[in-house]
Amino acid sequence: MTISGKEYMNRIDHLKSDIWLDGQQIAGKVSKHPAFRGAIKSKAQLFDMQNDPVLRSILTFISPQIEKNVNFSYQQPKTKDDLLFRKKATELWARTNFGLLGRSPDYVNTGMMVLAASHKIFAAKDKKFGDHILRSYENAMEQDLTFTHTFINPQVNRSISYLEDSYSEENIAAKVIGENHEGIIIQGARLLATQGGITDEVLVLPAGGNFIEEAYIYGFTIPSNTEGLKFICRESFVNDDDSSFNYPLGSRFEEMDSIVVFDHVLVPWEKVFLYKDLNIAHRFFTEANFNTMLLFQAVVRMIVKTEFILGLAESIIEAINIGEYQHIQDKVSEIITTLEIMKGLHLSSQVNARLDKWGMMTPDAKPLLVAIHYYPRIYPRLVEILQLLGGSGLILLPTENSFASSVRSYIDTYLQGANSTAEDRVMLFRIVWDLCMSPFGTRQTHYERFFFGDPVRLAMGLYNGYPKNEYTKRVKKLLETNKLE
Amino acid sequence: MTISGKEYMNRIDHLKSDIWLDGQQIAGKVSKHPAFRGAIKSKAQLFDMQNDPVLRSILTFISPQIEKNVNFSYQQPKTKDDLLFRKKATELWARTNFGLLGRSPDYVNTGMMVLAASHKIFAAKDKKFGDHILRSYENAMEQDLTFTHTFINPQVNRSISYLEDSYSEENIAAKVIGENHEGIIIQGARLLATQGGITDEVLVLPAGGNFIEEAYIYGFTIPSNTEGLKFICRESFVNDDDSSFNYPLGSRFEEMDSIVVFDHVLVPWEKVFLYKDLNIAHRFFTEANFNTMLLFQAVVRMIVKTEFILGLAESIIEAINIGEYQHIQDKVSEIITTLEIMKGLHLSSQVNARLDKWGMMTPDAKPLLVAIHYYPRIYPRLVEILQLLGGSGLILLPTENSFASSVRSYIDTYLQGANSTAEDRVMLFRIVWDLCMSPFGTRQTHYERFFFGDPVRLAMGLYNGYPKNEYTKRVKKLLETNKLE
Amino acid sequence: MTISGKEYMNRIDHLKSDIWLDGQQIAGKVSKHPAFRGAIKSKAQLFDMQNDPVLRSILTFISPQIEKNVNFSYQQPKTKDDLLFRKKATELWARTNFGLLGRSPDYVNTGMMVLAASHKIFAAKDKKFGDHILRSYENAMEQDLTFTHTFINPQVNRSISYLEDSYSEENIAAKVIGENHEGIIIQGARLLATQGGITDEVLVLPAGGNFIEEAYIYGFTIPSNTEGLKFICRESFVNDDDSSFNYPLGSRFEEMDSIVVFDHVLVPWEKVFLYKDLNIAHRFFTEANFNTMLLFQAVVRMIVKTEFILGLAESIIEAINIGEYQHIQDKVSEIITTLEIMKGLHLSSQVNARLDKWGMMTPDAKPLLVAIHYYPRIYPRLVEILQLLGGSGLILLPTENSFASSVRSYIDTYLQGANSTAEDRVMLFRIVWDLCMSPFGTRQTHYERFFFGDPVRLAMGLYNGYPKNEYTKRVKKLLETNKLE
Amino acid sequence: MTISGKEYMNRIDHLKSDIWLDGQQIAGKVSKHPAFRGAIKSKAQLFDMQNDPVLRSILTFISPQIEKNVNFSYQQPKTKDDLLFRKKATELWARTNFGLLGRSPDYVNTGMMVLAASHKIFAAKDKKFGDHILRSYENAMEQDLTFTHTFINPQVNRSISYLEDSYSEENIAAKVIGENHEGIIIQGARLLATQGGITDEVLVLPAGGNFIEEAYIYGFTIPSNTEGLKFICRESFVNDDDSSFNYPLGSRFEEMDSIVVFDHVLVPWEKVFLYKDLNIAHRFFTEANFNTMLLFQAVVRMIVKTEFILGLAESIIEAINIGEYQHIQDKVSEIITTLEIMKGLHLSSQVNARLDKWGMMTPDAKPLLVAIHYYPRIYPRLVEILQLLGGSGLILLPTENSFASSVRSYIDTYLQGANSTAEDRVMLFRIVWDLCMSPFGTRQTHYERFFFGDPVRLAMGLYNGYPKNEYTKRVKKLLETNKLE
Repeated sequence: MTISGKEYMNRIDHLKSDIWLDGQQIAGKVSKHPAFRGAIKSKAQLFDMQNDPVLRSILTFISPQIEKNVNFSYQQPKTKDDLLFRKKATELWARTNFGLLGRSPDYVNTGMMVLAASHKIFAAKDKKFGDHILRSYENAMEQDLTFTHTFINPQVNRSISYLEDSYSEENIAAKVIGENHEGIIIQGARLLATQGGITDEVLVLPAGGNFIEEAYIYGFTIPSNTEGLKFICRESFVNDDDSSFNYPLGSRFEEMDSIVVFDHVLVPWEKVFLYKDLNIAHRFFTEANFNTMLLFQAVVRMIVKTEFILGLAESIIEAINIGEYQHIQDKVSEIITTLEIMKGLHLSSQVNARLDKWGMMTPDAKPLLVAIHYYPRIYPRLVEILQLLGGSGLILLPTENSFASSVRSYIDTYLQGANSTAEDRVMLFRIVWDLCMSPFGTRQTHYERFFFGDPVRLAMGLYNGYPKNEYTKRVKKLLETNKLE
Repeated sequence: MTISGKEYMNRIDHLKSDIWLDGQQIAGKVSKHPAFRGAIKSKAQLFDMQNDPVLRSILTFISPQIEKNVNFSYQQPKTKDDLLFRKKATELWARTNFGLLGRSPDYVNTGMMVLAASHKIFAAKDKKFGDHILRSYENAMEQDLTFTHTFINPQVNRSISYLEDSYSEENIAAKVIGENHEGIIIQGARLLATQGGITDEVLVLPAGGNFIEEAYIYGFTIPSNTEGLKFICRESFVNDDDSSFNYPLGSRFEEMDSIVVFDHVLVPWEKVFLYKDLNIAHRFFTEANFNTMLLFQAVVRMIVKTEFILGLAESIIEAINIGEYQHIQDKVSEIITTLEIMKGLHLSSQVNARLDKWGMMTPDAKPLLVAIHYYPRIYPRLVEILQLLGGSGLILLPTENSFASSVRSYIDTYLQGANSTAEDRVMLFRIVWDLCMSPFGTRQTHYERFFFGDPVRLAMGLYNGYPKNEYTKRVKKLLETNKLE
Repeated sequence: MTISGKEYMNRIDHLKSDIWLDGQQIAGKVSKHPAFRGAIKSKAQLFDMQNDPVLRSILTFISPQIEKNVNFSYQQPKTKDDLLFRKKATELWARTNFGLLGRSPDYVNTGMMVLAASHKIFAAKDKKFGDHILRSYENAMEQDLTFTHTFINPQVNRSISYLEDSYSEENIAAKVIGENHEGIIIQGARLLATQGGITDEVLVLPAGGNFIEEAYIYGFTIPSNTEGLKFICRESFVNDDDSSFNYPLGSRFEEMDSIVVFDHVLVPWEKVFLYKDLNIAHRFFTEANFNTMLLFQAVVRMIVKTEFILGLAESIIEAINIGEYQHIQDKVSEIITTLEIMKGLHLSSQVNARLDKWGMMTPDAKPLLVAIHYYPRIYPRLVEILQLLGGSGLILLPTENSFASSVRSYIDTYLQGANSTAEDRVMLFRIVWDLCMSPFGTRQTHYERFFFGDPVRLAMGLYNGYPKNEYTKRVKKLLETNKLE
Repeated sequence: MTISGKEYMNRIDHLKSDIWLDGQQIAGKVSKHPAFRGAIKSKAQLFDMQNDPVLRSILTFISPQIEKNVNFSYQQPKTKDDLLFRKKATELWARTNFGLLGRSPDYVNTGMMVLAASHKIFAAKDKKFGDHILRSYENAMEQDLTFTHTFINPQVNRSISYLEDSYSEENIAAKVIGENHEGIIIQGARLLATQGGITDEVLVLPAGGNFIEEAYIYGFTIPSNTEGLKFICRESFVNDDDSSFNYPLGSRFEEMDSIVVFDHVLVPWEKVFLYKDLNIAHRFFTEANFNTMLLFQAVVRMIVKTEFILGLAESIIEAINIGEYQHIQDKVSEIITTLEIMKGLHLSSQVNARLDKWGMMTPDAKPLLVAIHYYPRIYPRLVEILQLLGGSGLILLPTENSFASSVRSYIDTYLQGANSTAEDRVMLFRIVWDLCMSPFGTRQTHYERFFFGDPVRLAMGLYNGYPKNEYTKRVKKLLETNKLE
């Protein structure tokens, strides 16, 4: 099924999840709350697009499981054309938000699809766990659900040798503390559920790290309004006055991040697909291609974001007429380089895709892992380039109200650009400011920097997983020919 | 004279300068207005320190001109000890604001001192202009005035070939449009007066750039409440609720930036010290050592700021126990390197100081120019290092109100650090966030990036002004010895 | 036709081109001369591969023009499969020299192919010029010729405003100084013919730069032994003792660079395809896709070179057992990133190829231009990484003779690696040294840095040629939605 | 005493040390051997300067111990003026070799001075060891000896967990294998004695690393011709034809590096000052300020080298007239920045010097440690800048013989520079090539990169040793003021 934007909004409002912001519990419709309404509205627009007759064939397919049109992200790709379909649809959605909605519904949906595609892993010891994830997947398609997910433990102590249970009586990271005939009981916290509370359900997977005890090994989905589940939000980066002139990006795309608290949460057995089995958890991480499919989505989003940055750069150049400077051209050529590199890496993953053991046409992971190693290091530079192009123009930005006041005539004269009115120029620079310098923007930068985890660990993973044998063999062959007698 | 903080606040309140913020004219006491009260209070504290018996000898000296104790920044240095005195006093003041108050009163005061020290330049054709700046300087000491200054024209068109008057009928950059027996009349705008409206006076100097017409050549000071003078502010980065827990830096040190509009402003002759004389303007830029003395102040401030960053980095490391990682140590060693480099450059300028032609003991400009070439390029990296150390901990920051609510117990458990309570850890990370990621913080970064102007031009100036002859001579000598017969 | 290595060597020896090295004219067989024999032998091996029955279908095709098997590089691609065929063949050849033979015969051959494919440009005003290049192309295929080419004027004065003829009576850059019924007469020099004197012919195209006078507009090919043509070589980087143990790369792949002197060289009309027509020269640069096809070859070579560097890095790691260090893994992940990026860009150019107006299937130029903007900046870093991995082991490298002496037993003990004998370890480190630190190696680095010209100009070209309109349009659309009433 | 250059040469020739090069033992006078004569001559020149009446007061002082004029480097500084004297003398010597003679005699001499100044450490358990180093120091002054030193073990296995004795029967790193009434017996190797065999003596100190067994703890000096001592050299970077036109730097300053083999070497007791006492070794590293004084010398040398690079950069700019380009100015400003930074750091160490517990006026170590952390990372960039400025001009460099041949007239025309003859231009570019791209030059770069050891370890040492407490305290104070009630 494909729901409408309105249906999505209603459903979220009816959940009445337990969300805390600035010391207060959210009451009333969350879709009207200034801290959430921007993202909810942007998501609603995505849902509506599915039902647009022109876009329907781009954004949906007929699910063989439920025999209805469902969102593209639920499709298990069988061919390279399926991957191309997926890419085009992801791109179309991402362009509506310029790649700024990091948790566009297709992101975690894609994860649900992979879990289902590789359900045999979960069924390895007990068939019911395989069935549970399959049913959750079908249910998600039936209802066009949206998810958030959590996979990081609290950052209490990042020392190499830290093992929580060895020294603390307190539960910090969420863990299984009991089970009964209805389900399993979870206590503790998980970090960084983006959009926590404004999705239908939460997907919970084992966190990486130092936890090897079986109490930390579990996988399930639960509705956001499950009893005992709380979302404690960071400060909102949208003010009450969420003027789209003043905060053109934040007012639309601020997603909110939250701590997910499990206070004696009972997870029904039928929602559990992984339980206390380290071996299966390990097989999931190595055999399911979960990350590869997520990255296939994420890299498209990053490409769209880079296109946005290129568009902004060129717009600044036109507005204040700086295109003739060699160092300006040099800087923009860095953005172009990033754009073409990311496109090349994504294409490479798609062209060199192969069927995995579950019959899923799986993009080549290597270029995607390189993309996710490369982009977090280059994205802050792209942001810096915009700031260098904007210069002092990014400081003196009057507000919407200023334009409605008696000093407008001064502003119109003194803040005009060579090729634009003051209003256009201020609007443009406000977009740039909101991408680079507002709390919304700096969170975007931070988010890209740590997307998919600690950059140092990503580099180590890339090195260790990369096949190098073919290349050392060539060196060995050269050494042979040089051998002394 | 040295005023108290209270006297400063009263004086600014009584000015009732024409300040516009978010479409509204500031009414009532500016020192009570949330957008300004933080900076005003921080400055007031600086004034009070002058009168503290323990600090008085560090922060004041007896002016030979007015034979009273006045602020250290007004001293014309005659010896290297005077420079050391100046450095120590600057440092003491800067430490109270961690180097975050870019326009600490001593900054422009120092400029006033240099203008007076080199008054003979202004008197070259007409003695009265020399007298005017001398009297303004003495008056500033008498009353312990504070200044802002402006020196950039609006960023309408940055093309190389842009000359305003050649194509536009409109006045944009402020220029002389008339004179009468009382004074000269200025019309147009200037950019980026930091603290515009909360200083006693405004110092106006010729802007650089493409303007060679004499209407753009002028220098004067005027009270902030002069008729026709308006300050149009950017958006305030302090919210109404300026909690020092939530915004520990912005609530104290947000300085505000403004466009200065001269709407037919009459500047009395006795405040004018430069008028329509390009030759004198040129001599001022090349002979007065104005920039050298400003940089001597600014580099001390940057050192103090770098010390603050080092303290924050080490505090994060302690809080979440990451000191054992080699890449963490590597990153902090970059901060240490910056700190020692900046200290070395400043010391170098001081040790190699010389008397200039006006009898002012002038620091060596070379290492200061290098410092101002180096710091804007390295400062964003220091900020990035703090962000890399903080990681996801910089995203999930609950507010002061959250700690006062019923979810506090969760926060206390889940956001604690290895070596700190959740409250301490959140406070620490909020400081870091406010330095790196809040609008206050990103403006700080942007400010450092463009402090003293466009980095590309600074590099060109450094190259062109640096004495290279001694080194090419050594190469020539080597070439001689290699000569073929 | 496809010649054998031996035929190539004989032909070059019989040319007896006028080559000067270290003040002496090369006499005798150039293929025996230590400064040239390595490259000649490496090229001979390439020719032999064409005739190997196993490789023949990979490296040759049947030319429709001459109806014989000829080298792959002469094929005018009509389909994407033709491009894939070309890529595979280029790769196979490049792997025999690890991408170190910058002027592998397929490089300039490809240029000849493009000139022929776009011969209508040259025929635009005078049909004979079109016929000349077609015949030269067919002749090259008939005889399996090899070429060098020259396209840079002497680096006398690189000032922006330098125009040779405006101030100098001397000819420096080669130009037309006359013509007669036999042909045109060229006087002056061109720079940097790599392999000058050891190819059959020289392809001469207009140099870029400041020359707008028609005397500098010409295009032709001539045999390397044409009267008046001289090749003045730089110092040879191969010593008399070209031990492949001591200099494993230089002894095989040193290509030599030369100044090409045209001392009243008469170029027969039938070899001329461009003459004094600035308009046609301009059309050639913008319509012929000459650079795109050259880059399609070059990027494959760079990929092979990067694979070699990755193989060397991993071999060092194994030899001295440093794989466990995080910073080592981090460095190698930079090499991996470069490799995947270059592969992605090349694939992108191939997948998005289009037929050009001459019916040639032309790779997308954008990713190739990015590759050539990116690689010159990253290659020196790859070399640096090898040096950082090798550490002090790259300094203490005994020679082949040392291993044959009585101190060998000491060397065997003290220079062994954790996982290799001293001999193997020294051989390996000598390869690395020869790639990074020998004159051969530093010339390789310099060559990559300036491959395809000044990096600053490449960046400017990339910026100016890149289509940005689609992206600014998206920004404009966003601005529309924000418009104030 | 201060010897003459000739005396030095004779003494080295008479030693007849056991030196192996390219599989052959050096026979005859080493000062005539092409691989060594350049460095020996350059050192001889330094000795002669000591006896020049004009320079004598700059380069020598009267030793209180032996009451004669001796080289400046032997002076134990008691005052800041002594440090200034030392700095000036170091600089004067370094300028004769442009900072390219890494092991100028004053380098290890300074080490001998520190050993003597802190002799009480060695005498802590057994007075004779203190006396030995004192007598060695006095003897060095009496005879004006020169030293090399060794402090690295062979690079067999750099794994973290590698402990030689735990798995290998073979001796690799030199260690004590016995003692008798005459002395101690050493077996094994040490790496990287620069100038091994062309100094009077060798100073041997404990290597760092994983060796904690007492057999690796020793310190002594021995004559280079001690029985059993062998120097196995790397390949010479000076060819037989050591033309100073072709190799202007290598022909003068190539120092040679060697493996030092101890084949049952008997070290007489009176030369031993440290023996099997880990505690004393540890005290030496932490209390003696050995490294601080070496760095005080080294940083001066680096400053002189940077001045040379700046001179070369500007000379290239003049020769080919590229000074007007903004990106060229930008690059040279990087060199200027490095120069001023290094000067500032050195000055800082000198101005903030303090007496250590042995009464030695000791420079502040902090800025010197920063210098040695900074320079190895920036030096390769300086070299790259020279290469970027030189461009293709660094490839086409004809030899001295070419200028003496019949093609000279071509060279004179085609290789002239805008402001220089071809000869001058080629000479200049040959110097640059020899600094950046010859084996001599790349070894210089590698040498700077690893001067004072692995850059990663240096960073860790800098971080761990740096006092950060003052700065975290300021943060704590700020946290206090933000505390919630």
